[in-house]
Amino acid sequence: MSEETLLSDLEKKRHTGAHILASAVAKHLEDEKVDVKFGIGPPIEHGFYYDFDLGERTLTDADFKGIEKAMKHIVKQNLPFEMREVSISQAREISAHQPYKLELINDFEAKGLSTVTYYSIGKFEDLCRGNHVDSTGKVGAFKIDKVAGAYWKGDEKNPMMQRVYVLMFDTQDELDAHIAMLEEAKKRDHRKLGKELDLFAFSDLIGPGLPLFTPRGTILRDELTRYVIELQEPLGYKNVDIPHLTNTELYKVSGHYDKYGEDLFKFNMGEREFAVKPMNCPHHTQIFDSRQRSYKELPIAYYNITKVYRNEQSGELAGLSRVLSITQDDGHVFCRPDQIQDEASKIYVMIKTFYATLGMNLQVRLSRRDPANPQKYLGDDALWNNAENSLKQVLSAAGISEFIDGPGEAAFYGPKLDFMIKDAIGREWQVATIQLDFNMPMRFNLSYVDEHNQKQHPVMIHRAILGSVERFMSIMIEHFGGNFPTWMSPEQVRILPISDNFLGYAQEVESALKVHGVRVEIDGRAESLGKKIREAEIWKVPYSLIIGEKEVASKTVTPRKRHVGDMPAVSAQEFTDMIIKEIKVRSL
Amino acid sequence: MSEETLLSDLEKKRHTGAHILASAVAKHLEDEKVDVKFGIGPPIEHGFYYDFDLGERTLTDADFKGIEKAMKHIVKQNLPFEMREVSISQAREISAHQPYKLELINDFEAKGLSTVTYYSIGKFEDLCRGNHVDSTGKVGAFKIDKVAGAYWKGDEKNPMMQRVYVLMFDTQDELDAHIAMLEEAKKRDHRKLGKELDLFAFSDLIGPGLPLFTPRGTILRDELTRYVIELQEPLGYKNVDIPHLTNTELYKVSGHYDKYGEDLFKFNMGEREFAVKPMNCPHHTQIFDSRQRSYKELPIAYYNITKVYRNEQSGELAGLSRVLSITQDDGHVFCRPDQIQDEASKIYVMIKTFYATLGMNLQVRLSRRDPANPQKYLGDDALWNNAENSLKQVLSAAGISEFIDGPGEAAFYGPKLDFMIKDAIGREWQVATIQLDFNMPMRFNLSYVDEHNQKQHPVMIHRAILGSVERFMSIMIEHFGGNFPTWMSPEQVRILPISDNFLGYAQEVESALKVHGVRVEIDGRAESLGKKIREAEIWKVPYSLIIGEKEVASKTVTPRKRHVGDMPAVSAQEFTDMIIKEIKVRSL
Repeated sequence: MSEETLLSDLEKKRHTGAHILASAVAKHLEDEKVDVKFGIGPPIEHGFYYDFDLGERTLTDADFKGIEKAMKHIVKQNLPFEMREVSISQAREISAHQPYKLELINDFEAKGLSTVTYYSIGKFEDLCRGNHVDSTGKVGAFKIDKVAGAYWKGDEKNPMMQRVYVLMFDTQDELDAHIAMLEEAKKRDHRKLGKELDLFAFSDLIGPGLPLFTPRGTILRDELTRYVIELQEPLGYKNVDIPHLTNTELYKVSGHYDKYGEDLFKFNMGEREFAVKPMNCPHHTQIFDSRQRSYKELPIAYYNITKVYRNEQSGELAGLSRVLSITQDDGHVFCRPDQIQDEASKIYVMIKTFYATLGMNLQVRLSRRDPANPQKYLGDDALWNNAENSLKQVLSAAGISEFIDGPGEAAFYGPKLDFMIKDAIGREWQVATIQLDFNMPMRFNLSYVDEHNQKQHPVMIHRAILGSVERFMSIMIEHFGGNFPTWMSPEQVRILPISDNFLGYAQEVESALKVHGVRVEIDGRAESLGKKIREAEIWKVPYSLIIGEKEVASKTVTPRKRHVGDMPAVSAQEFTDMIIKEIKVRSL
Repeated sequence: MSEETLLSDLEKKRHTGAHILASAVAKHLEDEKVDVKFGIGPPIEHGFYYDFDLGERTLTDADFKGIEKAMKHIVKQNLPFEMREVSISQAREISAHQPYKLELINDFEAKGLSTVTYYSIGKFEDLCRGNHVDSTGKVGAFKIDKVAGAYWKGDEKNPMMQRVYVLMFDTQDELDAHIAMLEEAKKRDHRKLGKELDLFAFSDLIGPGLPLFTPRGTILRDELTRYVIELQEPLGYKNVDIPHLTNTELYKVSGHYDKYGEDLFKFNMGEREFAVKPMNCPHHTQIFDSRQRSYKELPIAYYNITKVYRNEQSGELAGLSRVLSITQDDGHVFCRPDQIQDEASKIYVMIKTFYATLGMNLQVRLSRRDPANPQKYLGDDALWNNAENSLKQVLSAAGISEFIDGPGEAAFYGPKLDFMIKDAIGREWQVATIQLDFNMPMRFNLSYVDEHNQKQHPVMIHRAILGSVERFMSIMIEHFGGNFPTWMSPEQVRILPISDNFLGYAQEVESALKVHGVRVEIDGRAESLGKKIREAEIWKVPYSLIIGEKEVASKTVTPRKRHVGDMPAVSAQEFTDMIIKEIKVRSL
């Protein structure tokens, strides 16, 4: 397969852009006599980058204008690409002063190549395997995004280079829309909002990737997981509780010991080797397996909101999006093959209800067997056909005709459904999953006694509604920009007495709300009403209740809706009824 | 200080008993020509033991009668103790064929002793430092309890010996009462009941000390912790959430890194050294410290139901009593010195309410400074006087005049109150604690800004109501013998339709109960009513509801109370109201 076939038209434009950028940086630094050493410049999502080693010279935002000017000049010239193929030894001569290129040439030679190709636009020539648009005038609209440090070949033992990121899209409109989205995302950055709204914190002593949830953040977590629990308990899911440690023997049997490799936190104590659990399924199998099970008892469904731990490089850790301590809203169903459809359907309804409440549409992907290679999969044809048909039935019963069909995308142990959402600024996130597993019950030799008194392996269904609670929180914080629906809000009502004189009545209203579990605070400080209102808005409290002489006299409250303003005065009882209903139905 | 002062009269009797046992075992095995090698024989709680190395000869229950007979003979003879003091080298000659005694002699020599003492009763002489009653006739009533393996000096690298345990009390009545208690404890053994009632399980793959909680056991856990949460939330305690891992830097600052030593699970990953948390306080300090605090905000109180992990030797692990994964109902208050009394008092009320609900009286111990050595403690006189007086005030305000006063028992960082309960068979357990801490806020340099705009260290109060949830569950299981009060019961009601014909009405009754959160199951199997009733009793379900023709016709249920029997038929509504109330007030 030639590399030509791998790049889309837009990716070719972006790859071309990388050549233009490299040439432009050389031009930009020409007068400073900087010795520019070139790394690599691939297309990426939303654009491309190029890595440079500039010795002591550090590129900053101040350089962007000059570099962009040089790039635009190259585009305007509409220079064609010229290619020449040379031997490895010729290449070494051409790139004699480019140590990173020399390393790449060595790599090509080691792979058995006897020739390499160079592409030039104007006077700028670069070692490259091709895959461009015809000439520099045919690239898309672009803008330099940022510069950041990056190790050569991503290895921290190598020198640190300067990576210049450029955004590129087919049209100026698309570029502008993307830049606007980035601006919006910056404003909504959950790390910034997490601090401002006192939702979570990190400690240098505890280290990166290990977030601490403050009282407010813990409420947000709990509201999300409580809703999941509320949806699944009526379906027969039972809460279980497991330790975070295990002898590694468990993962040797499950097969995760090798699979997780360096991502598994493990250690020896005395004669035992322990691991911190990176997933819950093996533990749950042991609860299932703690008693003899009959076909009449199935399905048995466990749920567990619990943390798993996976090692990630510190560089990859970012706020709540990537953490070492991942809370999962995990669930496992042990069922008979004839129960798959019912169980998957129940899970689907749960997922749909959850996301409908958030006002989010789901996109579905069905990962199934490669029909051409049935030997790659565990379990016989009948089992797979039943399982895949069951999942398709779930979709068709739900009236879903549009889904991403993924033949060949199933894991060897079973087919699955994955669910994606789009957030308020158009970013796509994978969230929920329904995954069939024929493998783990066999590995752990789980069984139930069927109606013929024979032992059978159950099918296991792994499912999550949120996935990682931390990551889901980061999505929610950014999706709502911190303006959470009332039911999720850490503080739902703030009472603002205009002066101390009205504190008594404020406390009455507070008690009336608290009795119903409404999260309410009184701002009893001796500050102006204006200041109190502004602060309640900064804290993004859905409702402020203003209480002055008029309200006390008429036993009313004047609610002020976040970002909307004053509402008509209502009796405290009416307001209580209104907000209780709003919370109960989880109104947006 | 001579050792004489260390043993009580009863302990002297027990120590004497050990000599009698050793002599009796030698006598018992005389005819078999077993080479008896003697270890040590100290008094312990409830009696004494003696360790023997008998080569291939294994003592079993069948030997107990013979040994007891030999012991009784020695008692009847009322032999006086005779003592001789000998040099170390003479001792080596006397004990030439006793390798364990020789090791002890070496140990004494290493400690600088030049002589040792031997005590004999009749012909049986033993290396011993004394502390007996005058003669063998003066011991108490005794009974051989059991024989178990024990490593010499408790070190698993040493040979395994046979340890014979003997119970001894001053009187036969006390001995009988203790034996009756042990019998009762055996019946109530939480390990046995945990399996029978499907509350928890262990897995060989996961390993000892790491319990898995089944759905039923998880309900029991949650009911206990939910009550704690219900008591503390109105007092202003806020839930927080923390990871189970941390960089060990946290424990270097807290001082636990060295203190916990081998009990701390720790490991390296890349350049970071991680630990699995053995306590939560250091994490909680970091939440407090994540924002600037003002004196107006204090007290700030966090609670957290979360697992900590401490390494215990496998040999020490027993059911839920000693586990590696310990769930704590942990709470920390950060307050000003002038708030100590209020806060401690609120905690005391919480503790008292909780245990009153369980029908248990609390015994209190006040651990305070040694007034003679104020220099041993951190913090000035004023702080300590205030803190100790505050705790005393809490007790006196609560009308508690009887408490165990412990001068000199405080930790160097603050005084505390510990709370003990007695279970249904008279065993005492330490449970709740209120502990003041002046140290940790200093170590972490925690501060709040006082009314003079000065930074001050807060006082930290550590508190727990249950302590370890696992250990507390084991106490509850044994205290109630599995017959939990309805509010705690995993299954509160079981509906027993006499035949399939009544299943419809049974489901109506089930729904009516479920709506109110009552945990109800239907036993719809085609079994006889008698069998269903027996099984409901075995599962210790508080109420069974029998449903037959009469009940369907009159829309009633006939409740059957656990271990009591049938109650008069009542309407389904009346039963629902009754049980909801029983649950709500957490009736015993």
